[in-house]
Amino acid sequence: MMGMAVRQIARAAPDVIQGLARAGAATVHEAQGRTGSMGPRLQAITPGAQVAGSAVTALCAPGDNWMLHLAIERMAPGDVLVVATTSPSDDGFFGDVLAEFVARRGGAGVVLDTGVRDVAILRDRNFPVWARAISAQGTVKETLGSVNVPVICAGQRVVPGDVVVGDDDGVVVVPRARAADVLAAAEARVAKEDAMRARLAAGEGTLDILNLRARLAERGLRDMEGPIDWDAPTP
Amino acid sequence: MMGMAVRQIARAAPDVIQGLARAGAATVHEAQGRTGSMGPRLQAITPGAQVAGSAVTALCAPGDNWMLHLAIERMAPGDVLVVATTSPSDDGFFGDVLAEFVARRGGAGVVLDTGVRDVAILRDRNFPVWARAISAQGTVKETLGSVNVPVICAGQRVVPGDVVVGDDDGVVVVPRARAADVLAAAEARVAKEDAMRARLAAGEGTLDILNLRARLAERGLRDMEGPIDWDAPTP
Amino acid sequence: MMGMAVRQIARAAPDVIQGLARAGAATVHEAQGRTGSMGPRLQAITPGAQVAGSAVTALCAPGDNWMLHLAIERMAPGDVLVVATTSPSDDGFFGDVLAEFVARRGGAGVVLDTGVRDVAILRDRNFPVWARAISAQGTVKETLGSVNVPVICAGQRVVPGDVVVGDDDGVVVVPRARAADVLAAAEARVAKEDAMRARLAAGEGTLDILNLRARLAERGLRDMEGPIDWDAPTP
Amino acid sequence: MMGMAVRQIARAAPDVIQGLARAGAATVHEAQGRTGSMGPRLQAITPGAQVAGSAVTALCAPGDNWMLHLAIERMAPGDVLVVATTSPSDDGFFGDVLAEFVARRGGAGVVLDTGVRDVAILRDRNFPVWARAISAQGTVKETLGSVNVPVICAGQRVVPGDVVVGDDDGVVVVPRARAADVLAAAEARVAKEDAMRARLAAGEGTLDILNLRARLAERGLRDMEGPIDWDAPTP
Amino acid sequence: MMGMAVRQIARAAPDVIQGLARAGAATVHEAQGRTGSMGPRLQAITPGAQVAGSAVTALCAPGDNWMLHLAIERMAPGDVLVVATTSPSDDGFFGDVLAEFVARRGGAGVVLDTGVRDVAILRDRNFPVWARAISAQGTVKETLGSVNVPVICAGQRVVPGDVVVGDDDGVVVVPRARAADVLAAAEARVAKEDAMRARLAAGEGTLDILNLRARLAERGLRDMEGPIDWDAPTP
Amino acid sequence: MMGMAVRQIARAAPDVIQGLARAGAATVHEAQGRTGSMGPRLQAITPGAQVAGSAVTALCAPGDNWMLHLAIERMAPGDVLVVATTSPSDDGFFGDVLAEFVARRGGAGVVLDTGVRDVAILRDRNFPVWARAISAQGTVKETLGSVNVPVICAGQRVVPGDVVVGDDDGVVVVPRARAADVLAAAEARVAKEDAMRARLAAGEGTLDILNLRARLAERGLRDMEGPIDWDAPTP
Repeated sequence: MMGMAVRQIARAAPDVIQGLARAGAATVHEAQGRTGSMGPRLQAITPGAQVAGSAVTALCAPGDNWMLHLAIERMAPGDVLVVATTSPSDDGFFGDVLAEFVARRGGAGVVLDTGVRDVAILRDRNFPVWARAISAQGTVKETLGSVNVPVICAGQRVVPGDVVVGDDDGVVVVPRARAADVLAAAEARVAKEDAMRARLAAGEGTLDILNLRARLAERGLRDMEGPIDWDAPTP
Repeated sequence: MMGMAVRQIARAAPDVIQGLARAGAATVHEAQGRTGSMGPRLQAITPGAQVAGSAVTALCAPGDNWMLHLAIERMAPGDVLVVATTSPSDDGFFGDVLAEFVARRGGAGVVLDTGVRDVAILRDRNFPVWARAISAQGTVKETLGSVNVPVICAGQRVVPGDVVVGDDDGVVVVPRARAADVLAAAEARVAKEDAMRARLAAGEGTLDILNLRARLAERGLRDMEGPIDWDAPTP
Repeated sequence: MMGMAVRQIARAAPDVIQGLARAGAATVHEAQGRTGSMGPRLQAITPGAQVAGSAVTALCAPGDNWMLHLAIERMAPGDVLVVATTSPSDDGFFGDVLAEFVARRGGAGVVLDTGVRDVAILRDRNFPVWARAISAQGTVKETLGSVNVPVICAGQRVVPGDVVVGDDDGVVVVPRARAADVLAAAEARVAKEDAMRARLAAGEGTLDILNLRARLAERGLRDMEGPIDWDAPTP
Repeated sequence: MMGMAVRQIARAAPDVIQGLARAGAATVHEAQGRTGSMGPRLQAITPGAQVAGSAVTALCAPGDNWMLHLAIERMAPGDVLVVATTSPSDDGFFGDVLAEFVARRGGAGVVLDTGVRDVAILRDRNFPVWARAISAQGTVKETLGSVNVPVICAGQRVVPGDVVVGDDDGVVVVPRARAADVLAAAEARVAKEDAMRARLAAGEGTLDILNLRARLAERGLRDMEGPIDWDAPTP
Repeated sequence: MMGMAVRQIARAAPDVIQGLARAGAATVHEAQGRTGSMGPRLQAITPGAQVAGSAVTALCAPGDNWMLHLAIERMAPGDVLVVATTSPSDDGFFGDVLAEFVARRGGAGVVLDTGVRDVAILRDRNFPVWARAISAQGTVKETLGSVNVPVICAGQRVVPGDVVVGDDDGVVVVPRARAADVLAAAEARVAKEDAMRARLAAGEGTLDILNLRARLAERGLRDMEGPIDWDAPTP
Repeated sequence: MMGMAVRQIARAAPDVIQGLARAGAATVHEAQGRTGSMGPRLQAITPGAQVAGSAVTALCAPGDNWMLHLAIERMAPGDVLVVATTSPSDDGFFGDVLAEFVARRGGAGVVLDTGVRDVAILRDRNFPVWARAISAQGTVKETLGSVNVPVICAGQRVVPGDVVVGDDDGVVVVPRARAADVLAAAEARVAKEDAMRARLAAGEGTLDILNLRARLAERGLRDMEGPIDWDAPTP
C-alpha cells in the first residue's frame, strides 16, 4: 500500500466527534470495550489540549516526512493528522512551519508515532500535538509513502476517517462506523462515574459501589488483622 | 504471598514522617547510605508535590487494579498507597475516581509502578502521584492479588508501614525501623549542604570544600595546560 | 584518555555563540547539514531555556560524579558543562549545590548524558539543564575520569570548545571550526522559513513552496479520488 | 472486538503458502512492497525453523493466556497461531504442554507478541516459535479475549487466514487476498537475486548491478582520494 | 546496608535444592504461587544449563565488581553467586578468570543483573551463567558494596541462602524457609502436567482438561461460525 | 560531513591487527585503558567469530543502505565494514547478497549499528557480523550519506583505518595510531591473566592476587560471622 494517495475520506458526524472530544481519551477507550488506546508511547506535547477529529493519515519512511506535506493539503477543518512510519523513527517529523500549515487548513491536531520539534513554539500556540519523542533531528523528503490509507500508529490501526481522540492521557482511535455507538456508551459511562462520585461523597467505598467485595472471599482471599512484623531486626 | 490482605500496619512516628517529607527524596536517599531510591522509572505526574507517608501496599496482576480498591479502604490519613505488579504493566491503574477515594481516606499520595490516567484532573487537584507511565488503557478486576504485604516497587522493597518519600526527583523508601535515624542523618546532611553553599558563596570550589583535590594527584591525574587541538582541519 | 585534565580550551567568537543560541537547536542542526543532534535521549529539564556556550567536558565512570567538581572549576562565563560516562548511567550526577557552583562560575548551562536531581530547585531558578533522566539516586567520587577531552555525549562527539546549543527541542553540538559558517547558514535558513510562512499565509501549500509536487508523480504516486471503504461491516 | 470467537477462517491455497515458506521472511517482505515485517521485536526462539501458515489469532489480556486454549482447538493442519495482547506483556504465555497441543492439531508454528517458556523442550523438538521474550513467568486464565478476529501483532495487522511467514529473520504477514501475487513477486525476486550473485561472481559490484552509481554524482557526492588524517596527534 | 560482609549463610537441604533444580525455573515459579521469577531481563548465557543452589549475594556499585571477589571466597560447593547493583549497569562484571575462581570454590552457577564477558570461554566450559547483557566493557574496584545481605536482583528479593533455580527459561528464587514446600508443590505440578500430556495424547483439548470451557459461555463469549470477510477488496 | 566519499584509508600494520584479533575484544578494551567498547548494544550474529580489521566506514540515513554498496567497493582484504546511521534504525541493512560482495572483496567482517537479515545464511557461512538487531525489514537507496568519514557507531567514534576487534563479547575500536601500543598492553594483560590463573590453581583467591583485601578494611567494611536471619517467619 506504499505510493498511494487518496483525496476524499468519509467522516463521522460532527456532533459525534465533538461529543467524543468532550468525553476524553480514557472514557472513550472504556466505552468501546477497552480498545483503541495508543498507550503510553505517545505523549501529549502540549499539555491541556483535548481534541477529536477525523483521521487523515500519512505513512512515511523512517526519517522522511515528505508525505506530511501532501497529507496536510487533504485535511479539512476539524481533521486530525495521523502519522505512522514503516519502521520506527523518533526524528523530528513535524515543527512550527507544518503546524502553521495545519492551522491554515483548520486542522484540530496532529498525532505522530515519530518525534516532533519546535516544541516551544507549538506550546506557545497551544497547538495540539501528540508524539513519541521530542527531537531536533530533521528529516529528508526522498521516499514515497502513502496518504489516506490505513496505518498502524502506536500499535492501533487507524483507517482514514476514524475518529481520533487526544488529551493528556494520550490518544484513542474509534472506528468511524462505531463512533455514534461509542459516544452513547461514553456518555453512559460519564453518568455512571458521576454516580460513583456521589456515593463516594456519601462515604461508600468502591468495592461496594462496584460490587467487588463478595468475590474477594469467593476467590479465597485470606484476610488477616495484622500488623505483621515482616523483618527480623537488622543486625 | 498472593491472595493475602492485612488490615493493620505499624507506622513510624508522625513527626518523623513529616521531617522526612521536608528533607525530600534525594536528601533522604543520601541520608540512609544511598539506598532506597526507586530511580528514574517513576516520574512525578503532578509536579511540585512533596510528601511522605506510611506505605499501604497493593500487589496486582498486570492490567488488573482490583486490589487497589481494597487497599485504599485500608489507608489511614497521611498514608501513601504503593502499587506493584507481578509482571510489568504500564496500563492506567489509577485515575480520578480512585483519587477521589484516596482523598476521602485522607491519603497523602500514590506511588505506582504502573501507568495512570485522568492526569489532567489529577494535576488540577494537585493530587500527588508518581507512576511509570501515563496511559488511557484501562484495567480489569479479575485476578486476586494482595494488600499490605511486602512488594518490590520500581526495584525497591517496600514493607507495609515503611516511609515513602516522593517529590519531583522521584520516590525513596525508608524502612520503618530506621526512619528516625534516617531523619537525623538527613537533617545533618541539610546542615552540611547549607555550609557548603556558604563556602561556595565565599568563593571556594567544591573540590576544596569536599577535600577531593589531593586525591586527584594521588590517583595519577595528568593535568595539562592546553588548549589542545584535537582535530586536524576538515578537508 | 582517562585520567587527563586540561585547563584551557579554545572558544568560538562570542557573537557567533550568541547567534547560534538565537537560532535554536533545530535550525542549527539543519544548518550544518542535519548533523550534531543529540536526539530525544536528552530532555530539557527546565523548559523554556535556550542557550549556547563553549563545551567544557567531563568524562566520568558510571555512578561517579567526581570529575564534575574539577570541570566546573575550569568553566569560564558563558560555558556549557557537557557530561558523558564510560558506560550508561542515569544516576543523579548533578543537583542544586553543583548548579550553584556553575552559576558562580558564570556557566550558561549543563548537558548530561546522565540523570539529575533537585529538579524542583533547578526549575525554580530557571537553571538551564538537559539530561537523560531525573533520579534521586546519588553518586560516589571514587574513580578518576577526565576533564576537557573529547567525549561522546548522547551519540555525538563533543570536543572541548565546540559550541553546544540547547533549547526545548534538545541539544545540538557545532564543531568550533565550523561555528561561524553554521551561523551564517542558520541565519539563511531562518530567512527562508520566514519566506515560507509568508507564502503559507498567502494560501500556498508546502509542496509548492518546496517544489516537492512534481516529484510525487515522477516517483509513481497513484492518486485516487476516494473515499475508499477499507473495512467490510463488522459482524 | 473483545469476547468474540470465530470457528472458520478462509485460507490461501496450500501451494501458495508453501511457496511463501520457501521464499522466506525477508524476500516475502520485499516482494509485497516492503510491508508486513514484524521487525526485530519478535525473535526466533528455535533457530533454523522456516515455516508459513494461515493465521489463527488469539487476542489476550496481559498476563492471561486463556484464549490460547480455545484458539488452538480451532487450528487446522498447517496453521500458525498468532497471539497478541491488549497491552504489552512479556510473560510466558506458551510452553511445552501447549506446544504438544498445537503439534497434535498439526499446527505449523506459533507467533507470540509475548514471552514463552519451556524453551529447552521447544528447541529439543524443533518446535517453530517466535516471541518477544523468554520468561518463566506464568499466566492466569481469568479475562475473556477473542479468537480469530483481526489483531495487531508486533506492529502489523493480522487478519485470520492471512499467511504468516517465519524464519530466523523474524516474521512477515501477507494478506490472504494478496498471497498469490506476493508469491509471484517473491519468485521473481529470488531469480533477480540469483542473477545478482552471478554478476558478483563475475567480478561486478552492486552499484553497477543495481544501476546506483550514476545517481551518486547526480546527488552531489564529493569523491576524494584520501587518505585523510582526521585527528591531530593525541598529546 | 552498604559496607557489610557476612561469612556464614543458612542453606536449604541439599536434596531439596537438587529437587528444585530438576523441576526447573518455570515449574518452580508456578509451584510457589507464580512468584519469584526474575523475568525476561536475565538471559541464559550458556544455553542448556539447569542448576539450583544457595544464594551467596554481592551488592555492587554500577561498573564496579570489587565485591564479587569477596563473595566468591564465601561460596561453598553448590552455591550460586547472585549479583545486584545499586543502580542499573550492563558492564561486564564477570568473565573467565572469576569463572575459574567460582569453579574452584565448587560453585554451581552465577546470576548477575549486570553484563558478562568472555562468553566464548564460559560457553566452551558449559559454565552456568545468567545475565542481563553481554559486554566487553570492564569494571573498576573502587567502591565498597556488601556481601551476603538481601538484594533486589532483576526485580526479585534474594536473601542469602535462598534457593536460586536457573535454566533456559531464566531464573527463579525460592525463599529458603519455603523451599521444601515448594519442592513438594513442584513435584505435584510435574505429575499433573504428565497427566495433561496423557489426556492430550488421548485426543482431549486443554479447555476440557483444565475445566475452562464452561466459563467461556458464563463470561459471555460470542461464538460465531465464520468465516468473516474482515476487509473490503483493496482498490 | 554528509555526501563525502573517500577512497584511500591509512591502515595499521597487519601483524598488529592480527595480534589484536587474537587478544579479543575484552582484553583489548582493558589494554587501552577501558575505552573503545561498543557495549552490549551490538550482538554477535554469528557466534564464534573472532576478527580484527581496518575500519571502512559508511554513514547512512535511517532505513537506507545505499552507502554500503559504495563502501564495500572500497574495502581491501582484511578490512571491516563499520555502518552507522544519522538517527537510530534497526532495519535490515545487510544480508546475504552484500555478504557475498564483502567476501569477494576479502573483507574480514561487518559491524552495523543497525539490523541485519538473511541470518540463517550468514551463520551457515560463518560470515562474521555484529549488529544491533535481526530484522526482515528492508531498506531503500534514496539518501546520500558518506563513506570513509569518522562515524559514531554504538557510542564509539570510529575513524577510517582504526582497528575494529569483534568476538562473542562484542566490538571494540582501537585508534590506528595507538594500535601497536594497545597490542603490547594486551599481550602484557594476557600474561598477567595467565599468572592469575596459575595462582588460582594454586589455591589463592583473587582478593590476594590483586591486592584488594587490605583496602576492604581501610574503607570500613564491617565483617560479620553470620548467619543472619533476615526475615521474621511468614504468617
